[in-house]
Amino acid sequence: MRPLAFIGGTGPQGLGLALRFAAAGAPVVIGSRAAERAAAAAETIRAAVPGASVRGHENAEAMARSERLVLTFPFAGLAGFLAQAREALAGKLVIDVIVPLAVRDGFFELTPVGGAASVGELIQQTIPAARVVSAFKNHSAEKLRDLAVPLEGDVLLCGNDAAARAEVAALVGLLPGLRAVDAGGIANARWLEAITALLLNLNRRHRARATIAILGLPST
Amino acid sequence: MRPLAFIGGTGPQGLGLALRFAAAGAPVVIGSRAAERAAAAAETIRAAVPGASVRGHENAEAMARSERLVLTFPFAGLAGFLAQAREALAGKLVIDVIVPLAVRDGFFELTPVGGAASVGELIQQTIPAARVVSAFKNHSAEKLRDLAVPLEGDVLLCGNDAAARAEVAALVGLLPGLRAVDAGGIANARWLEAITALLLNLNRRHRARATIAILGLPST
Repeated sequence: MRPLAFIGGTGPQGLGLALRFAAAGAPVVIGSRAAERAAAAAETIRAAVPGASVRGHENAEAMARSERLVLTFPFAGLAGFLAQAREALAGKLVIDVIVPLAVRDGFFELTPVGGAASVGELIQQTIPAARVVSAFKNHSAEKLRDLAVPLEGDVLLCGNDAAARAEVAALVGLLPGLRAVDAGGIANARWLEAITALLLNLNRRHRARATIAILGLPST
Repeated sequence: MRPLAFIGGTGPQGLGLALRFAAAGAPVVIGSRAAERAAAAAETIRAAVPGASVRGHENAEAMARSERLVLTFPFAGLAGFLAQAREALAGKLVIDVIVPLAVRDGFFELTPVGGAASVGELIQQTIPAARVVSAFKNHSAEKLRDLAVPLEGDVLLCGNDAAARAEVAALVGLLPGLRAVDAGGIANARWLEAITALLLNLNRRHRARATIAILGLPST
């Protein structure tokens, strides 16, 4: 199996997802702006998942080494990243898990994404040659990071390339407890991002780590 | 029990909800711009739910007769309604189920709601004396109308008046299969409306009548 590279993968969401994929037996690469932080995150994963296939590299090298990239850095870093990643992302599967969150008076809301209705659409518009799939936007980093907690719920995913969506659905299938739900074109990324904001507001009110499930779909 | 009045209740969403509440034993009033259409809808409900307590009235009379109003007309009628409903809604529980939907090239999206981020917020801002709760935005009219189909999933509800939210949660509790989920202040209505658009896009793709459930909340 080809490795899955987590770009900006030392943060909670990236590390959490990488841990889960490593625990499922997938080879993973952690990318970071600093090689030593990538190596430390890789070590964290090896300690939690003995025998894991995991390496740490600078982001540029991590991107060069993998055809499947998961963008897991905060929204604040997106514009700078896109300005210099056009060639590195071209032709690759780019899984976007970024949500443009802001908090105002304790209320989680979405920051406008300049020029697009969602992060997923912005990435696809900016780098048309990338095979962008938005996914994993609705699963809490804390829960992902705690391997003792079983995962549950649906991973809604969307993107304009049906083969890329199927590839991400197969990756979701590696993670016990999760179901992939194909939400169609990348324009649906806005709804996935909205659900994240809702879930964070629910978490705050109910002291929970909520996620969602879609009921009523035909079983596949 | 005081009646629940469905304003613009002859459309699929209003009639569907009224049917379910009538089947649960709640007295309901159907409001319409035309008294004869209200009477016909009441007759439809009586035929489906023998012994139901249901009456049909013009909207103005329906509003005057009830302290609990469910706004179930299409978004296109909202501005005109709000322009003349200030007094009729003051002090009342106003349950908003309206979603500002539009379809573009087969993609369901949300129409901007002038001056607010959601229909729920627009109603509350326009009529501050109303006790607005957004709810029931994520359940398909077709499924509501077919009493043979069991309901499932969560009714997310939000509003700035906690007592009003509790009152709506109690109403949800009358309907078998549904759970009320308190989503807090009315600013969350935007997420509920976003979920409707997502569900309609999922329905189209998967030939389904999907709804959602929130996983991971503490049991109450």
